[in-house]
Amino acid sequence: MPDIYDLIVIGAGPVGENVADYAHQRGLSVAIVERELVGGECSYWACIPSKAMLLPGLTLESARRVQGAAQAVTGDLDVAAVLKRRDSFVQNWDDSGQVEWLDGAGISLVRGHGRITGVRTVSVTAGDGSVTELTATHAVAVSTGSAALLPDIPGLSDVDPWTSREATEAKSAPESLAILGGGVVGAEMATAYTSFGTKVTLLARSGLLGGMEPFAGELVAGQLEKSGAVLELGVSPRSVSRGDAGVSIELENGRTVVAAELLVATGRTPRTDDLGLASVGLTDGDWLEVDDTLLVRGATNDDSPWLYAVGDVNHRALLTHQGKYQARAAGEVIAARARSRAVDDGPWGLHVASADTAAVPQVTFTDPEVASVGLTEKAARAAGRRVRAVEYDLGSVSGAALQADGYSGRAKLVVDEDRQVLLGATFVGQDVSELLHSATIAVVGEVSLRRLWHAVPSYPTISEIWLRLLETYGRPSE
Amino acid sequence: MPDIYDLIVIGAGPVGENVADYAHQRGLSVAIVERELVGGECSYWACIPSKAMLLPGLTLESARRVQGAAQAVTGDLDVAAVLKRRDSFVQNWDDSGQVEWLDGAGISLVRGHGRITGVRTVSVTAGDGSVTELTATHAVAVSTGSAALLPDIPGLSDVDPWTSREATEAKSAPESLAILGGGVVGAEMATAYTSFGTKVTLLARSGLLGGMEPFAGELVAGQLEKSGAVLELGVSPRSVSRGDAGVSIELENGRTVVAAELLVATGRTPRTDDLGLASVGLTDGDWLEVDDTLLVRGATNDDSPWLYAVGDVNHRALLTHQGKYQARAAGEVIAARARSRAVDDGPWGLHVASADTAAVPQVTFTDPEVASVGLTEKAARAAGRRVRAVEYDLGSVSGAALQADGYSGRAKLVVDEDRQVLLGATFVGQDVSELLHSATIAVVGEVSLRRLWHAVPSYPTISEIWLRLLETYGRPSE
Repeated sequence: MPDIYDLIVIGAGPVGENVADYAHQRGLSVAIVERELVGGECSYWACIPSKAMLLPGLTLESARRVQGAAQAVTGDLDVAAVLKRRDSFVQNWDDSGQVEWLDGAGISLVRGHGRITGVRTVSVTAGDGSVTELTATHAVAVSTGSAALLPDIPGLSDVDPWTSREATEAKSAPESLAILGGGVVGAEMATAYTSFGTKVTLLARSGLLGGMEPFAGELVAGQLEKSGAVLELGVSPRSVSRGDAGVSIELENGRTVVAAELLVATGRTPRTDDLGLASVGLTDGDWLEVDDTLLVRGATNDDSPWLYAVGDVNHRALLTHQGKYQARAAGEVIAARARSRAVDDGPWGLHVASADTAAVPQVTFTDPEVASVGLTEKAARAAGRRVRAVEYDLGSVSGAALQADGYSGRAKLVVDEDRQVLLGATFVGQDVSELLHSATIAVVGEVSLRRLWHAVPSYPTISEIWLRLLETYGRPSE
Repeated sequence: MPDIYDLIVIGAGPVGENVADYAHQRGLSVAIVERELVGGECSYWACIPSKAMLLPGLTLESARRVQGAAQAVTGDLDVAAVLKRRDSFVQNWDDSGQVEWLDGAGISLVRGHGRITGVRTVSVTAGDGSVTELTATHAVAVSTGSAALLPDIPGLSDVDPWTSREATEAKSAPESLAILGGGVVGAEMATAYTSFGTKVTLLARSGLLGGMEPFAGELVAGQLEKSGAVLELGVSPRSVSRGDAGVSIELENGRTVVAAELLVATGRTPRTDDLGLASVGLTDGDWLEVDDTLLVRGATNDDSPWLYAVGDVNHRALLTHQGKYQARAAGEVIAARARSRAVDDGPWGLHVASADTAAVPQVTFTDPEVASVGLTEKAARAAGRRVRAVEYDLGSVSGAALQADGYSGRAKLVVDEDRQVLLGATFVGQDVSELLHSATIAVVGEVSLRRLWHAVPSYPTISEIWLRLLETYGRPSE
């Protein structure tokens, strides 16, 4: 006899937990399947440990940048203490607190590897080999996330490279670390390990933080080099091997980089390779394409929709917070459809993830921090929008100058000229991470530029950059 | 022969400078009158030096609150270095940089004490006694600001008390400091001087930071005491006197507080006592009441309006940024009326300071920081609004916990139940100052709660408090 639930969620990361919770709060019975730790990648091997590893170094550097405070900082970062603090934030990789939360929320946990076996059926194989058959009366939601993608480089699999997992769970800092990839993971881990005193060499095919406004990667690269990291940009590895000295990365330009460890951070791959997708007309290993209500396109169906993909696995926006946002919509819409209630799937409705295309926020905890939301100027133009962008030097804002001696940063707004609203914003500088949500609300709220003139930034904060950007754009004359 | 300008601005603080600049940019000729330093109170004796005095201590404390970073902080704040840094931010009280800016902007500076002598006429008496008569073809704007109010306490004028000026220009930290007043100035200076090692005793009639949400003053008071300050709340001074031990403050409860210096921070008084107001039907020493276009009510007039009051002096919102906001509207509307262009004076129009009543932001740089905008719950209820308020513990947000060990803080949203928009928000905690502008945009933009669910806070930032507050309020079900 199979266990029957209204909804089966595969993957108990923050995204799966939220799908389950929101649906359950609307009255559905829910089982959630997890083969590793409840709490998922973010809690144990991504956002939480990475910020825990970055923050002490960033905070110390902030103090060093203020005369009067700087004199009190006479020692170095205590790396063992940083890692011990990191361990406490990841609960020493023990998920009992998260399991307790599931229990309290009334969600049934089924431990093991879940595989879809047909429309609304899931088979879960536990560690001991026992199998539980689950049937959903309404829906199955896949939120298995993504894993580090290992590129096809000769020798790579033989050198036991680090991925984001090993980088965030390291028990000590290696003497040297080569990082392959200039995206968010590469840039953040270069920042963290450099603060630990590790000799970091970052190798990337192009510049840092591609896809963001160009000055973001430039400012981060500049500071990394100032802090002692070596950046090899515009390079590609030809092969890798491990010897007594550590890992050797032979580059296509003929040079060789040697480091104690190699972190590969070149992208992500969906965790869908052993999920039983073929049983419902989909392809194992593929990203799951969804509509705005997170419903998977192309799955074998009966009269009513049943398969959802939420979070990284749908490839809309590979960020925990955005996955959780999708999860709220998905939990709600699954419940609404199960109860035959009206579905609010117009733009910005209750049951859609409209922000996925218009307003994805992201903070990279590098030095300087990079905070962005919505479209870059380039992306907006590529989308055919009539845009005008304005930039301003953050260091010349009083609040920033007060915050750190020699403050260096830059900000940009991308304006939709037809509608006179913001399409995107980017802030790069120390302590800009909390400033981002102002732009997120402006973009999502479609607040007009005219009205934004009335949103007064408090003086002297870094937020005064808003006034400078509006002045740079020009005040309407009538 | 009097000098003739389209607009005469009395007072060259940031507010006067902005009135002048915005009007001049729209084509008016402008003279600005200043009897002290161009740049005004904010630049030399308020926001700038106070934040410069606070920031190093706050930054150092932040580093001490993060295990790993804390170990590197072995010394104390270098007070001499803090004050030297402060000196550089106030340009050593030299206004030549500001004068240069006025020159570059094409605004004529007339140094001396300006007095209104009749409709559109101003007489300026320079330090050497010479008098310049100015005539405005269109308008006179008063932006003389406010000064510290010395309460009527027996003996006070004989003890040479500090006001915010002496507190922000001090060349060294006294051994002990009594502070009279629990408002923003009192709380900030208690924080700064406590960080300098001064033994601070703060005396206030009621709690700290009255007018804000109650938890703001409570959290700041708690931390001040933890840092070693003595708080005497609910007390009133009966008399003061100065002896060999310093200033003695005899309280009405019979106790006596003795300190090397006494800072009086009990309120502000308008700088209108010697402004010639009586010549145009107004009362010397009064605050100047204005309409939403900053036009003074009740002044002797001819056919067209001419007298404006902008900034502290109109008593709408005694904050530099809010005065500058008014200044932008005033500069524009003066120019529009001078050129007989349409005046956009509806709510949130180009020519009004609508935010003065709906959305005044304020950050108090105490530990924890207090950031608020719009109405408190109490004020909203007093205004007859149908409101619901939600609160949440900031320390239980991941981004905050990562930011500081033992993070303590609280946040609150005040919701207009009829319109489902925010009327106000308050954030109290370390590093919340840049978070405020998100709420300011939400209030000013009148962004609906439904839409705010789509404004995703980046994880893990302190901004995630937005999600927690929305969840506490409850998600709409259809």
